Amino acid sequence: MIKNKLTEISKPVKIELEEFQKLFKSSLKSNNSLVNLVTNYIIKQKGKKVRPALVLLSAKLCGEINERSYRGASLVELLHTATLVHDDVVDNADKRRGFPSINAIWKNKIAVLMGDYLLAKGLMISVEGEDFDFLKKITNTVKRMSEGELLQIQKTRKLDIDEETYFQIISDKTASLIETCCEIGALSNSDNIEYHNAMRSFGNSLGLAFQIKDDILDYEGSAKLFGKPIGGDIKEKKITLPLIYSLNQVSKDESARVRKLIKNNYKKDSVKEVIDFVNKNNGIDYSQKVAFDLGEKAKQALNIFPDSPVKKSLQNLVDFVLERNN
Amino acid sequence: MIKNKLTEISKPVKIELEEFQKLFKSSLKSNNSLVNLVTNYIIKQKGKKVRPALVLLSAKLCGEINERSYRGASLVELLHTATLVHDDVVDNADKRRGFPSINAIWKNKIAVLMGDYLLAKGLMISVEGEDFDFLKKITNTVKRMSEGELLQIQKTRKLDIDEETYFQIISDKTASLIETCCEIGALSNSDNIEYHNAMRSFGNSLGLAFQIKDDILDYEGSAKLFGKPIGGDIKEKKITLPLIYSLNQVSKDESARVRKLIKNNYKKDSVKEVIDFVNKNNGIDYSQKVAFDLGEKAKQALNIFPDSPVKKSLQNLVDFVLERNN
Repeated sequence: MIKNKLTEISKPVKIELEEFQKLFKSSLKSNNSLVNLVTNYIIKQKGKKVRPALVLLSAKLCGEINERSYRGASLVELLHTATLVHDDVVDNADKRRGFPSINAIWKNKIAVLMGDYLLAKGLMISVEGEDFDFLKKITNTVKRMSEGELLQIQKTRKLDIDEETYFQIISDKTASLIETCCEIGALSNSDNIEYHNAMRSFGNSLGLAFQIKDDILDYEGSAKLFGKPIGGDIKEKKITLPLIYSLNQVSKDESARVRKLIKNNYKKDSVKEVIDFVNKNNGIDYSQKVAFDLGEKAKQALNIFPDSPVKKSLQNLVDFVLERNN
Repeated sequence: MIKNKLTEISKPVKIELEEFQKLFKSSLKSNNSLVNLVTNYIIKQKGKKVRPALVLLSAKLCGEINERSYRGASLVELLHTATLVHDDVVDNADKRRGFPSINAIWKNKIAVLMGDYLLAKGLMISVEGEDFDFLKKITNTVKRMSEGELLQIQKTRKLDIDEETYFQIISDKTASLIETCCEIGALSNSDNIEYHNAMRSFGNSLGLAFQIKDDILDYEGSAKLFGKPIGGDIKEKKITLPLIYSLNQVSKDESARVRKLIKNNYKKDSVKEVIDFVNKNNGIDYSQKVAFDLGEKAKQALNIFPDSPVKKSLQNLVDFVLERNN
């Protein structure tokens, strides 16, 4: 269902996405047969291609899709794939998109090396195309993504996180790459700084809304219907917006009691108790409102562009991010 | 002892290395306290700094050390450090330079993220300094390093490796970074293409000689004196030059017998038997000769430069690489 919706959203760049897929495939060819074996496996899995679609939609909104737009799309997809391959190693994950993960089939050593290879390949495409403004964005993005994750780990340990820190974390770890996709699209074919700023702002708000919605879904019973277990963040002691807001609504003693529940989450009912606490204190409603406002802000950023099927698609993407159930 | 010898070799850039160390330290500062904790730990361990020394010596041989030379030195040191941090995760290593490894103290997740952070930081320094020729070299080097390692893994599985493949592996996985250090030094302050080529050739031959010597030491009993166990490569089924040469000197049957010994190395004496086989068939002598010739080739590459303390240091580095015992 998600895939159908995304296909509809990326319809204005359908042909270009097919062209991208061809280029992407050929750019991955190596003289090393083991590298080819692994990259063919990755290509076969056909990810949702949200990031290249964002680059191409943003490019088409600002001008004509050109060679640089395709290179930008390859860069973000390679970087994203490299990150996923490394993530699976770190998390010891056996599956990715329903298929066995690279580390499950070829072991950790090959998975880490392939991640490095994919990242280097992405950067090389940009270096060879002399897309130095892309490189500036992307290296800063890699730095922000790792800093955001590290900040989250650090704060999670202390169970101490306020709204400001939460926004810094999700802005760095999640929104930065989405922001970069949109900005790279604009940079690929336009010198208009207003366009660059508009697309960066659109991507940032969209990325923040996406992560908040993700964090809400961890608290929502309905997600159960789709087989995604709820309460995972609580088990991992991750403090996200619904909980931050709720903790601020109650007395110091009550807040301390809930924190203790999370800290000692060995009890079977702790997770349910925390979810009930958040629901009772309107943590979900508040977060929905924040996500909705960010969605509106994203749409407003597109106001400087005339109406078009591409603009409509980007607006629909915002709604899709806010309305999805898993 | 190694450290004393290296200090002597890098004497012509002693002051510059201290300046580099200061810049390197300040370039690592982050707003994230966990990042600072880990980077301070890395800085305290004081690695041998061979790679930054190579950049600075190469730069001084070609002209005046300038800001770009320092940025180049930071880039290679950050990349090298990132690689080591990731390597320790992959190999599940508890120690690095006698200290507990990053993954041993802070766990795999933080180690992988820190590796990504360090790599991004190195690239950002080059992007911000607009050192695009460095970026071209370094991204290609990262790609070659991962391809070389992957080729080695692939060939190791089949125990099938000839001299040509061996040279491709060690050229990519080891020599590429040393080559890049020397070339970046020359690129930092000189437009003379002859200089660039000479330093690239010097670095390539030095890097190959270094790896061959490393592979020889795995077969040499004397290494035992220094606490480094011998036969590690045989246990890991890595086929290196001493063995490749030896296998080519004997009958097909004898070669098959030795390969089988390596394949089924569960027997206690197999490793010793393979080492004896290599010694008897002059695999060590042959490899010593190849390494020596590469050392000569490296020195010859320096012929276009007038004599100077810096040139003498680089020549001494070649001898040191060939004569070291561990």
